[in-house]
Amino acid sequence: MANTDWKAKSKKLKKKYKALKAELELRIHDAAAAVALTTDAPTTKTKTNAVSPLAPKGGFPELPAIAGVEFASVAAGIKYKGRKDVMLVRLAPGTAVAGVFTKSSTRAACVLDCQAKLAMKVPAEAGAAIVVNSGNANAFTGALGQKSVDAVTGCVAKALGVPASRVFSSSTGVIGEPLPHDRITAAIPDLVAGLNTDAVKMAAQAIMTTDTFPKGASATIEGDGGPIHIAGIAKGSGMIAPDMATMLVYIFTDAKIAPAALQKMLSRNVDDTFNAITVDSDTSTSDALLLCATGQSPAAPLQGATAKAFEAALQGVMLDLAKQVTRDGEGATKLVEVRVTRAASDHDAHLIAMAIANSPLVKTAIAGEDANWGRVVMAIGKSGAQADRDKLAIRFGDLLVAEKGWRSPKYSEEAASAYMKQDELLISVDMGLGKAKKSVWTCDLTHAYIDINADYRS
Amino acid sequence: MANTDWKAKSKKLKKKYKALKAELELRIHDAAAAVALTTDAPTTKTKTNAVSPLAPKGGFPELPAIAGVEFASVAAGIKYKGRKDVMLVRLAPGTAVAGVFTKSSTRAACVLDCQAKLAMKVPAEAGAAIVVNSGNANAFTGALGQKSVDAVTGCVAKALGVPASRVFSSSTGVIGEPLPHDRITAAIPDLVAGLNTDAVKMAAQAIMTTDTFPKGASATIEGDGGPIHIAGIAKGSGMIAPDMATMLVYIFTDAKIAPAALQKMLSRNVDDTFNAITVDSDTSTSDALLLCATGQSPAAPLQGATAKAFEAALQGVMLDLAKQVTRDGEGATKLVEVRVTRAASDHDAHLIAMAIANSPLVKTAIAGEDANWGRVVMAIGKSGAQADRDKLAIRFGDLLVAEKGWRSPKYSEEAASAYMKQDELLISVDMGLGKAKKSVWTCDLTHAYIDINADYRS
Repeated sequence: MANTDWKAKSKKLKKKYKALKAELELRIHDAAAAVALTTDAPTTKTKTNAVSPLAPKGGFPELPAIAGVEFASVAAGIKYKGRKDVMLVRLAPGTAVAGVFTKSSTRAACVLDCQAKLAMKVPAEAGAAIVVNSGNANAFTGALGQKSVDAVTGCVAKALGVPASRVFSSSTGVIGEPLPHDRITAAIPDLVAGLNTDAVKMAAQAIMTTDTFPKGASATIEGDGGPIHIAGIAKGSGMIAPDMATMLVYIFTDAKIAPAALQKMLSRNVDDTFNAITVDSDTSTSDALLLCATGQSPAAPLQGATAKAFEAALQGVMLDLAKQVTRDGEGATKLVEVRVTRAASDHDAHLIAMAIANSPLVKTAIAGEDANWGRVVMAIGKSGAQADRDKLAIRFGDLLVAEKGWRSPKYSEEAASAYMKQDELLISVDMGLGKAKKSVWTCDLTHAYIDINADYRS
Repeated sequence: MANTDWKAKSKKLKKKYKALKAELELRIHDAAAAVALTTDAPTTKTKTNAVSPLAPKGGFPELPAIAGVEFASVAAGIKYKGRKDVMLVRLAPGTAVAGVFTKSSTRAACVLDCQAKLAMKVPAEAGAAIVVNSGNANAFTGALGQKSVDAVTGCVAKALGVPASRVFSSSTGVIGEPLPHDRITAAIPDLVAGLNTDAVKMAAQAIMTTDTFPKGASATIEGDGGPIHIAGIAKGSGMIAPDMATMLVYIFTDAKIAPAALQKMLSRNVDDTFNAITVDSDTSTSDALLLCATGQSPAAPLQGATAKAFEAALQGVMLDLAKQVTRDGEGATKLVEVRVTRAASDHDAHLIAMAIANSPLVKTAIAGEDANWGRVVMAIGKSGAQADRDKLAIRFGDLLVAEKGWRSPKYSEEAASAYMKQDELLISVDMGLGKAKKSVWTCDLTHAYIDINADYRS
């Protein structure tokens, strides 16, 4: 057959391929819609993605009600049709609020507003509220961005009788579009009327964008005089490479703790939880994590062993939510822990772990279930961290694949390939240099990531 | 239909999809093979990719013969079947050699060997040679790696009668597999017999891995007493984020210039050429660029205005080759220049340009022909460089899309979308802060990148 005929044939095939792909996507969409119809929540996205294969089995967990915290959500029509897209949280007087935020130099108006308000240190007795919308990030929206924040938080403040300086807001979605804040303020009466201590799952659904499942986690510890509860929700799926902060996360507890102590506890646990995950190395303009302590547990104020137990439980909830965000990484089919040990310094351990976790070549190899440890070597090499080729060892799960500057004599391609077929993988690198260690979590890079992101705005 | 039925159906469809994809790839392969059969070079890869749509029109350029430089290539069966995979270059006595290499801490044995040999400053009168294989990177191969380098360069030295300290080698391909160097040494007699001043195109083909076209560029300037020629070849397609060095590049000239001056000239032009491109943010273990000056032009030694003209021509050849590597970026369908102006410092300009050029979200948006300038804002924000939201301006081509902290009032979605349909795009960011500027070149992130890299070793 002539060259041009081959080309024509190959072009025709490409069209057929596209058609089949479109059909497949339609089927997946229908299947997801069918799944959604069997759940209690009618809040599926118009542009539904199939639920991540890495979603926690058993769906959204039972979260304990936190005394002093009420939730509500409504469909305000910000961008999505037919799903809830605004959540409101009312926090009882006496609630301590702590927060960490993105370090992006182009951060959104609502992030700047939250930071300014937390810095004011308004006494907790005033009460507080959180209002969050999905579908629009209100980022890079100029002076109008702050006006939108003022309109929304001012309206909530008036409706709930709390100072505007204690109303925190977040927006998540497309960047650079004006926020239609009138739609949110118009929905505030409905939100206030709907406030309920049990509505946390719907609130978690209302803050989703490209997320395929709502994320929640909780813990309960025994305090002095009664139980202390922690419950948190999160959203996040793409643009995930938090920089000393997070995506959108809201964690609530009934513990008694002063705002300054709460902030300190939050800040020192962020590096090993939310800052230890990456989906695509891209850092959002809107990352925000608020931790709210109502103090309404019957238990005594946190101190000593109880404070330690609380902090451990808090870190557990934070790590659980962070890993759920990675499990819902756009297009993810594998959850991967990258564990670096015996690095020369903490900084080096972080550099190496993130170089591996963000490498497109490592991530595509994982998607292809290819035990391509040579690319792990490449990522270590490019990280900028101290490395000695002959001292480092690489393991996939328990399988030693490389050591002493070369492929391990025990290496078995068969065993490595079999290991790569699992949903959850561990890549360990022992640098053989010092005592520093770091674990980070990432996911694979698949065709679905490109499908989701090549037409996100359309 | 029940949920499980849907799942079964969707699984079945996935299989069908994969089958169709496999068939498609086979057709594309056949079509490419058919194309190759009509050209003069029978050196197609077994696993052929369709030629990049961004390949220079007109194919491999006519390169001037450089007096004192001879090329040869053979099929040694390193990894690929039925294609040339080793090239040999003989450089006449008197040739000055300069080089820059990857800064990876896990760099390959041949890179370490080249660096050690250049540091010896062996007089140019001894003559020199370059031997390069594709299909195996001889990286992370322990002590055996250096033995392979010694075997190959020693064999070439003996056959050509030059000192082994003047035989430079490169290897490119899979990492962590032992290099079957016996296959290369067995082919040396054939290589030596085939040495020819006109065989540069076949040499360029012999060093290809996932490349879809051989890369060459040249320039000629008028020297004092005659013309001075420059001819260069390069390979590179994936694992492209050079760090103060390059992929594999060999540039030859008949200019008369001392080794130290040649090295200086090379080093100062790398940052704005090969270090200004990125395909996937991953840095190779094997990047190497050698620049060889035979001094056999009738023109006088380089100095004054001629030296300046020569350096400008050299930079042109380097940039041309660097852009060809980006044009052949794995899966690329768009060549994108990211141009940052008025940044606060050179360092900041580089950070911003690379943050945009490496962002998976920016690159998938470009693949989807989506004028998603919000993601450019995101990338600026995460870069770590100084930025003032209200001072920066973003342009796609000539279209002003964002300024003064928000979408430009002149912004037209229609015009921006039409612009994105072009093969070659310019994204400009005016930071409005200082005088520093930087241009880098990148490509889009497509499904084909994942196809190529999810099963590279298989």
